[in-house]
Amino acid sequence: MSKIPYRVYLSEDEIPRQWYNLRLDMKEQHDPYINPATMKPAKLEDLYPVFCEELAKQEMDTTTRYIDIPDEILEFYKLYRPSPLCRAYNLEKALGTPAKIYYKFEGNNTSGSHKLNSAVAQAYYAKKQGITSLTTETGAGQWGTALSEACAYFDIPLTVYMVKVSSEQKPYRKAIIQTFGANVIPSPSSTTHAGRSILEKNPNTGGSLGCAISEAIEHAVTHENCRYVLGSVLDQVLLHQSIIGLESKIAMEKIGEYPDIIIGCAGGGSNLGGLIAPFMQDKLTGKANPHFIAVEPISCPSLTRGKYVYDFCDTGKVTPLAKMYTLGCDFIPSANHAGGLRYHGMSPIISKLYHDGYLDEAVAVEQTKVFEAAALFAKYETILPAPESSHAIRVAIDEALKCKETGESKTILFGLTGTGYFDMQAYIQYNNNTMSDYIPTDKDLEPGFNALPKIPGVQE
Amino acid sequence: MSKIPYRVYLSEDEIPRQWYNLRLDMKEQHDPYINPATMKPAKLEDLYPVFCEELAKQEMDTTTRYIDIPDEILEFYKLYRPSPLCRAYNLEKALGTPAKIYYKFEGNNTSGSHKLNSAVAQAYYAKKQGITSLTTETGAGQWGTALSEACAYFDIPLTVYMVKVSSEQKPYRKAIIQTFGANVIPSPSSTTHAGRSILEKNPNTGGSLGCAISEAIEHAVTHENCRYVLGSVLDQVLLHQSIIGLESKIAMEKIGEYPDIIIGCAGGGSNLGGLIAPFMQDKLTGKANPHFIAVEPISCPSLTRGKYVYDFCDTGKVTPLAKMYTLGCDFIPSANHAGGLRYHGMSPIISKLYHDGYLDEAVAVEQTKVFEAAALFAKYETILPAPESSHAIRVAIDEALKCKETGESKTILFGLTGTGYFDMQAYIQYNNNTMSDYIPTDKDLEPGFNALPKIPGVQE
Repeated sequence: MSKIPYRVYLSEDEIPRQWYNLRLDMKEQHDPYINPATMKPAKLEDLYPVFCEELAKQEMDTTTRYIDIPDEILEFYKLYRPSPLCRAYNLEKALGTPAKIYYKFEGNNTSGSHKLNSAVAQAYYAKKQGITSLTTETGAGQWGTALSEACAYFDIPLTVYMVKVSSEQKPYRKAIIQTFGANVIPSPSSTTHAGRSILEKNPNTGGSLGCAISEAIEHAVTHENCRYVLGSVLDQVLLHQSIIGLESKIAMEKIGEYPDIIIGCAGGGSNLGGLIAPFMQDKLTGKANPHFIAVEPISCPSLTRGKYVYDFCDTGKVTPLAKMYTLGCDFIPSANHAGGLRYHGMSPIISKLYHDGYLDEAVAVEQTKVFEAAALFAKYETILPAPESSHAIRVAIDEALKCKETGESKTILFGLTGTGYFDMQAYIQYNNNTMSDYIPTDKDLEPGFNALPKIPGVQE
Repeated sequence: MSKIPYRVYLSEDEIPRQWYNLRLDMKEQHDPYINPATMKPAKLEDLYPVFCEELAKQEMDTTTRYIDIPDEILEFYKLYRPSPLCRAYNLEKALGTPAKIYYKFEGNNTSGSHKLNSAVAQAYYAKKQGITSLTTETGAGQWGTALSEACAYFDIPLTVYMVKVSSEQKPYRKAIIQTFGANVIPSPSSTTHAGRSILEKNPNTGGSLGCAISEAIEHAVTHENCRYVLGSVLDQVLLHQSIIGLESKIAMEKIGEYPDIIIGCAGGGSNLGGLIAPFMQDKLTGKANPHFIAVEPISCPSLTRGKYVYDFCDTGKVTPLAKMYTLGCDFIPSANHAGGLRYHGMSPIISKLYHDGYLDEAVAVEQTKVFEAAALFAKYETILPAPESSHAIRVAIDEALKCKETGESKTILFGLTGTGYFDMQAYIQYNNNTMSDYIPTDKDLEPGFNALPKIPGVQE
């Protein structure tokens, strides 16, 4: 066989026409969402005020293994998909490893990340239902950018609650979202009850994702014909993101490869869940046994140090409760934490798979080590990675170096979720040696755990 | 035939293995460079102190039509090439035009533009010759980023003289160049005679490309085993950039298309020259007759209002003189001009082709109209374009709208040279309606023309 190319591009015709619903192959479903008003399992209709109907159905769908991707979404996908599967020949050489390193690069689109895969789906279904405006939150800004692109395309007005510290540190992220026509409100804001309440308690807060979620949901339910959309955590988002894994698997099959190790960064879990989905299917159905590794920041260690319990998805405690690994919905990462992956919880699907041992391993890494890996990757692969993606790079390099020691020629696949063009402030810190690490003590984590919700008969 | 895809990707094997030297098919060569020390035509050896030998040879080569691309450069190209040829279905639909609009997208790499095509070539030849450091200038920062990537890859220390106003307005451009390990010096600086001399006359100047070129060249000739590299204007750069046109032509042939109109933005001329090269060959050899349009900012109108004379390539007047369209080497665009395309002159090849009528048309456009086109393009094609590239978008849209009036279904090809992720300050101005236009009066242009050099017997 001739040399595997540096970049494997599928043709437009090879874009998968269905998303894969991993829940169909899970041995057990994750525990149901709980409606905070009744403290009973949430029903489909409970979700309708917040999500548009098709998305609410996808959220609850445990009976359809493959869900057709509507033509309108497929047409949008063709503007930036299929994304390339890349062979990191230069990085392998620089490391002197016998391992074969592949990465699925989702950053070659203006949003700069994989988030666009779900943004376009959510905007489309809203448009189809006749929803006249959407609202969401954004942290690092990738999701806000992605959704603003999708809403511009489908002509849907969008309001983005942007974590205040991000909107201040990243004026250009804000600007790009505005260029696509969206209204950006720094959160916490005085436009919502949730925001005002948080500001009263802590007027100088820089905000958090959980808080911005609360504001966006309140905005959705208090505005006529408006709906809320979320860029991670939810089952529907992992469904849309399965396109990453499906494309990766087709591309690897074409070049006669199958990954021994699959690595993804994990914030809310959307990229990881999407990347591993079809490979996890192989594991769950006994066809193959790849080793899955989730990588999270040591400063926001939901999988490695969180509790597997019911928690709110937001700081304002207005969302349904989800059973997940969580640091407590009040948790806010230390101010010196750069980049995304700062969510207090973890996708219920990912949490369940990890709890049940199918997601093999979770690793927490220091950000200085992450940026060291990012700079090395940039030099040899000539792509400036997002800080989030660089968590996966770090562990991919570590695994490749283990192979160097053992002499094993393992096939490693990791998700390069995006580019770091809007994260230069963090790179400046790294370049100037002013970046520091923060490992929370057990005491630091206590308040979040102490404030976990009580649910009669379920979690006292 | 089935529908033409949104994105046409050639395979890695289809990357051209030779650059095309357009000079071989020109009816007349451009006038020779003049050595400012002797005021006589420059000889090959005159260039050796500044350029490494292989590049000096390419600069003077009018006998080799196709020049082999060394394997090491091809391997680097495979990290981001072939770049996609894109069909702008959505933009066509939004405009309601019968025209078919294609664009060659060179922005899907970390440098964010086509500049990488020449940067890697220049870094490689320097490495091969045993040069131990390189220096260059950068304005908008795309070239500096591209060269820093190439130098990191080939392990060559790099010093970048960055136009001071750019380094202040674009700290993140500076940071990305530093992330790839280069030393960035704001220009004019006190590190060179040229810089000090300019600062003495005008201590508050924000600098200019011409001035940064002077400093970089001085740095090269005063440092042991150091050479200067330039990202545009030169014949060697157009040679390397021919990869853009060659790939475009192969991709268009594959889908059974040939452009009626080819549009490129023009600053120093590298993207335009590279894009049109093989199509210009067709015109010069009578095989086809596409209509070529160069687009420049109305605030820096070298082709549309410059003089076709000998001029220095830099403000410090240390470079060889080139016969080109120029506004005078002292010309600095108005401070309200956003983005690149701010060079006082124009590639000698492009100048000659324009002067002789082969490059059919040059158009100067206002920046507010350019950003209007950029925002429209972003909405429908979901790529945030660089301000420079958006000049070409503007005219492509105008040509498509002419087709709408006449009912003609012309095939339009334009160069989308890069992305605007580091140009958000300009987008913020556009979004806030604080962007203004500037059309220089004849009086504004007079000082530049009055200071044009005198050359005994050639230009008195």
